[in-house]
Amino acid sequence: MSGHGTVCPQEFITFAGRLANAAGEVLRRYFRTPIAIDDKSDASPVTIADRESEAAMRRLIAAHQPQHGVFGEEQGSDRLDAEFVWVLDPIDGTRAFITGKPSFGVLIALLHQGRPVLGIIDQPIIGERWVGVAGMPTTFQGRHAQVRACPRLDAAYLYTTAPELFVGDDVAPWARIHDAVKHPRYGADCYAYGLLAIGFVDVVVETTLKPYDYCALVPVIEGAGGIITDWRGQSLGLDSDGRVLACGDRRTHAQALHLLASEQA
Amino acid sequence: MSGHGTVCPQEFITFAGRLANAAGEVLRRYFRTPIAIDDKSDASPVTIADRESEAAMRRLIAAHQPQHGVFGEEQGSDRLDAEFVWVLDPIDGTRAFITGKPSFGVLIALLHQGRPVLGIIDQPIIGERWVGVAGMPTTFQGRHAQVRACPRLDAAYLYTTAPELFVGDDVAPWARIHDAVKHPRYGADCYAYGLLAIGFVDVVVETTLKPYDYCALVPVIEGAGGIITDWRGQSLGLDSDGRVLACGDRRTHAQALHLLASEQA
Repeated sequence: MSGHGTVCPQEFITFAGRLANAAGEVLRRYFRTPIAIDDKSDASPVTIADRESEAAMRRLIAAHQPQHGVFGEEQGSDRLDAEFVWVLDPIDGTRAFITGKPSFGVLIALLHQGRPVLGIIDQPIIGERWVGVAGMPTTFQGRHAQVRACPRLDAAYLYTTAPELFVGDDVAPWARIHDAVKHPRYGADCYAYGLLAIGFVDVVVETTLKPYDYCALVPVIEGAGGIITDWRGQSLGLDSDGRVLACGDRRTHAQALHLLASEQA
Repeated sequence: MSGHGTVCPQEFITFAGRLANAAGEVLRRYFRTPIAIDDKSDASPVTIADRESEAAMRRLIAAHQPQHGVFGEEQGSDRLDAEFVWVLDPIDGTRAFITGKPSFGVLIALLHQGRPVLGIIDQPIIGERWVGVAGMPTTFQGRHAQVRACPRLDAAYLYTTAPELFVGDDVAPWARIHDAVKHPRYGADCYAYGLLAIGFVDVVVETTLKPYDYCALVPVIEGAGGIITDWRGQSLGLDSDGRVLACGDRRTHAQALHLLASEQA
């Protein structure tokens, strides 16, 4: 957490909650209904629910914070040079959404001068919300969220979305960390980071993430006492390479970084 | 579905609901609380929640259906030669449970002369229940559940719990079906079969399952219009080899069986 206090006004925290409410309203309407699924250029699926969820949030920003920038997964970027920029993923886990599995989430981040100062993970079907603000304790369902201790990687419960994420140069580091943890698990998308923030998961490792996939996670994880970086231990920002490592315990993080970076036989 | 009507008295359907209620009460009490995790002889985890959930169901059976047999994951078998035998998995997806992810379920099957005639999949955190009875339509939240059409495997959404399930002789068949579907997904345990029964997943393929993992699924899937067999297309029973293939559409099932069985290059 930053040592110089919050730079996120309460007004924006409240407003972020309104954005999550608006997105959730759209997603509850479309969840488990027969909607068309389109393939994007990267072969990932997108639906009217993704588009309307993002549009609902963008309308609110345009109406109430018109000076703010917006960077959304489905509808691109506006005013990225603004002091405050909202980074939106209307459905993180579209494959979970379209298969009816409520482990997807709405991700909302607010960047101040490029740094994530607010993050929300919202699961609108189960009705769960994590709110992280730089310099403040993360909340889950309105109560303080806290990571758990996990001093050793071989005792760690790890999540990643799917092993197919890891291709090319990422295969060997993934294999090393997969073999080092106690239990690798799959299929939780952003929900895995939420579980880490409340102390039931120890490590999340992913790659090929975009800023709208990870910016919201930073204040949530850090405000719960955890650590989230790229695979070299660097802070995450808009220009990160998409490799993400989140841990509840710094000792686990150090061990995981070593495995992800090393050129072992 | 059997052509000769149900052999499952309404009394037992009602009683199965009471078993699920009792198990769910235990699991809600322990979910996301810091409980000890023990390793079983096969290195899979077990907790007091598994044990108390099964014990609660067994107490009800002993009190109200003492002539029935019981086969439970954690506490073994009694009276397996009885006309009716309850097959219980107090937590299918213990790894999901202990990491705080509500994709696990309670599985309750009733066998009549060795054949599954009733199955319940219950998710007690989200509050979702599937009930399948031989010769009757499956219900989800009290309403009819129905699989969807999926004529071709290359359009199918597939789930399996984790790729680590597949070892030895199962690796090649898994790789063939993984590569043939549209989207392979992970991490849903019994919940994946529930999603198939309501028409949002097309294929579930797994291996190394035990009777308490699959017996409850049979009436749920069949009563929703789907098909569930082993990898040779045979009906599932207590003596099956643990390889399970469930599909919503018989055409997809035929294509998947071919891939699972064939010795392709």
